Amino acid sequence: MQYQDYTREQLLAERDRLRADYREIKKLGLRLNMSRGVPSPEQLGLSLPMLDIIHSESDCRAIDGSDCRNYGLLDGIPSCRQMMADMMEVTPNMVMVGGNSSLNMMFDTIACFMNKPVVKGERPWCEVADRKFLCPAPGYDRHFGITGYFGFEMIPVPMHPDGPDMDLVEQLVKDPSVKGIWCVPKYSNPEGITYSNEVVRRFASLNPAAPDFRIMWDNAYCIHDLTDSGDTLLPIMAACEQAGHPDLPILFCSTSKITFPGSGVAAMAASMNNMKVIKNKYKYQTIGYDKINMLRHVRFFGSFDGMKAHMAKHRAVIAPRFELVMDRIDTQLSDYGVISYNRPRGGYFVSVYVTHGTAKRVVDLCTEAGVTLTNAGATYPYGKDPDDSNIRIAPTYPSLDELSKAMDIFCICTRLASVEKLLSDA
Amino acid sequence: MQYQDYTREQLLAERDRLRADYREIKKLGLRLNMSRGVPSPEQLGLSLPMLDIIHSESDCRAIDGSDCRNYGLLDGIPSCRQMMADMMEVTPNMVMVGGNSSLNMMFDTIACFMNKPVVKGERPWCEVADRKFLCPAPGYDRHFGITGYFGFEMIPVPMHPDGPDMDLVEQLVKDPSVKGIWCVPKYSNPEGITYSNEVVRRFASLNPAAPDFRIMWDNAYCIHDLTDSGDTLLPIMAACEQAGHPDLPILFCSTSKITFPGSGVAAMAASMNNMKVIKNKYKYQTIGYDKINMLRHVRFFGSFDGMKAHMAKHRAVIAPRFELVMDRIDTQLSDYGVISYNRPRGGYFVSVYVTHGTAKRVVDLCTEAGVTLTNAGATYPYGKDPDDSNIRIAPTYPSLDELSKAMDIFCICTRLASVEKLLSDA
Repeated sequence: MQYQDYTREQLLAERDRLRADYREIKKLGLRLNMSRGVPSPEQLGLSLPMLDIIHSESDCRAIDGSDCRNYGLLDGIPSCRQMMADMMEVTPNMVMVGGNSSLNMMFDTIACFMNKPVVKGERPWCEVADRKFLCPAPGYDRHFGITGYFGFEMIPVPMHPDGPDMDLVEQLVKDPSVKGIWCVPKYSNPEGITYSNEVVRRFASLNPAAPDFRIMWDNAYCIHDLTDSGDTLLPIMAACEQAGHPDLPILFCSTSKITFPGSGVAAMAASMNNMKVIKNKYKYQTIGYDKINMLRHVRFFGSFDGMKAHMAKHRAVIAPRFELVMDRIDTQLSDYGVISYNRPRGGYFVSVYVTHGTAKRVVDLCTEAGVTLTNAGATYPYGKDPDDSNIRIAPTYPSLDELSKAMDIFCICTRLASVEKLLSDA
Repeated sequence: MQYQDYTREQLLAERDRLRADYREIKKLGLRLNMSRGVPSPEQLGLSLPMLDIIHSESDCRAIDGSDCRNYGLLDGIPSCRQMMADMMEVTPNMVMVGGNSSLNMMFDTIACFMNKPVVKGERPWCEVADRKFLCPAPGYDRHFGITGYFGFEMIPVPMHPDGPDMDLVEQLVKDPSVKGIWCVPKYSNPEGITYSNEVVRRFASLNPAAPDFRIMWDNAYCIHDLTDSGDTLLPIMAACEQAGHPDLPILFCSTSKITFPGSGVAAMAASMNNMKVIKNKYKYQTIGYDKINMLRHVRFFGSFDGMKAHMAKHRAVIAPRFELVMDRIDTQLSDYGVISYNRPRGGYFVSVYVTHGTAKRVVDLCTEAGVTLTNAGATYPYGKDPDDSNIRIAPTYPSLDELSKAMDIFCICTRLASVEKLLSDA
């Protein structure tokens, strides 16, 4: 029976039971951080052989014989550009391989356009006082952090099961002060939603009023499947080229959750028009990024196919964790009508919607019981979830045993917060 | 006898001899790039064992037990912060370890202050239309590239044997639109000059009209001695603290020319006031830099002392190259009165002044004969050497044998260009 159908007496009895359960489970003294999408030690172990690949001078030679230990190659070694191009489904000449972080490349791209217009004749964004950015929400808090830092007004766009609300996006881009949109198009952060072909085509067909409007296409989870088949995402660059808008998207990807977070390789891709402006920044910003690490990745994977094969090993480690989370929600919470969620088929999160007005309370209760979750609201621009409902669960880091205990706590807290809410609303 | 004392007939005869020599030497078909300060393969070999240090999970543990393969530690692992703090002669809490490039950190710092004021209440630099930066010249072309990119008017400051012309610097900083100065304080690029104690103290005592004036202290060659004793540079941070100006300097260093260019570790240091603004950018820009590579460096060197010991090996490789260059200049050019230079006691360059109005011609003649030098003028803001006289020689990359041939070419070209100039001036 759902809590909303409980009588007041039933709710009070349930609250007392849950409070007792909560007191008991707090005694376990769990200390578990599930706030970020962080690979588990087992996953990190999968890439250890990569650290054992480059030893000698000859190991450091790129295909063309150039010495990767020395200066040179601003946009990365050709073999790595090829691999990352395959990952982003573009041609290598569109690709720049950067440092260890695609987030860094996104920040630097926005920073670039703040100071130099990406389209000749337009004002740099720092001169657009009422600059705005579209933020499909719930979304990735660090995306919102960047546009917040640079003073954009952030406009939330609701997420549907097939991607952002495109009717609204098409409406909003009629404002020339709207300069871009954040997208995690496959296994989105946090909901695990993959944009439908129609959504991708509507993105490619956008006609923004601002000639310098750009789609920040952060394909962070492009090969992070949790199922045999995996979702299919229409390649954005091909779609945009077909629609006659090759300059619309800027693509990002990395191996942070494939090899090592912090010691992976990040890359971006864009049309020649965009890359001309972006590389004109990079050529002053650096002499080049870590080519030995690029080489490590290329040697370890051989090719993009090798990278995909490697992801099957990750899946074997983390799929059971996702199963456990979803199983607990299904068996311990769904009967009470206190939760709904999208079953992710890939990515790094299970994004749940608890009873409106209780997300913050659930997170606080979990924290008090030793389970740290992402701050409630963090998945929305300005950290403000209008419904106080969305909670992002990151199941990859804890062991199955820890996760099991954490989910017990989460389920008790979710029920308790809902019961409290119903009682206080009554 | 100096060329200026030659008769016209003697000059004509000398020109014909040199032209014949030049034609002969061109036949060697040399292809040598001496345009940048690039370590030689022998030098790179010195750091190869560093690639063989991190293999297992336990190798990846920092002192505090944290797993360097995973996310975390925005400002770097503590042991690496300590090592870089020792390098910059500051306390570790002032240090942020970044990616692979101190140039990148400098670019990002200027970019940061373009958008966010480093001093509360001041305008971000992008809003200062007539912003200016002081550029001791000759200097590092990539420094000038950054301030040029961000639209600063660059004001050259002459270099004296003990550092920049401080009388002029003290005068220029009275203009509140002057926002900073570039410094390579030890074994300066290109002249190999180390700032005297008095110059450092005058920097520390500066009272700029702009509260957000900053000294960009790029100590790229702080342990790159070519002599037993090495030069001594007064620590800028201590000097500034003593003078009551702890917020004036921002320090940079890297291991690019200690381990591997492109795969080294870079760091910066500044007062808490400055770091607060800078880290408030970094926390949006990235989750953290490559900690496995930091760990490689820490394990390879053990400590800053280990780094200094390693530099003795570099010196053994490159000191003979510097000797050869200076010896050739002394024996083949000085008699003709066509060249003057500062004998560097460290760093990466020999910076020479050829007959005014001939630097470009010398570089062109060398290029035609297969020896690529840094573009004449590159060491000045806007690429404009008012005297067309300075040439930067980078002796580290070529073998001694190649360098010997290259210097033969350089000497012939320098003499030929001078003779041509005297004839055309007559």
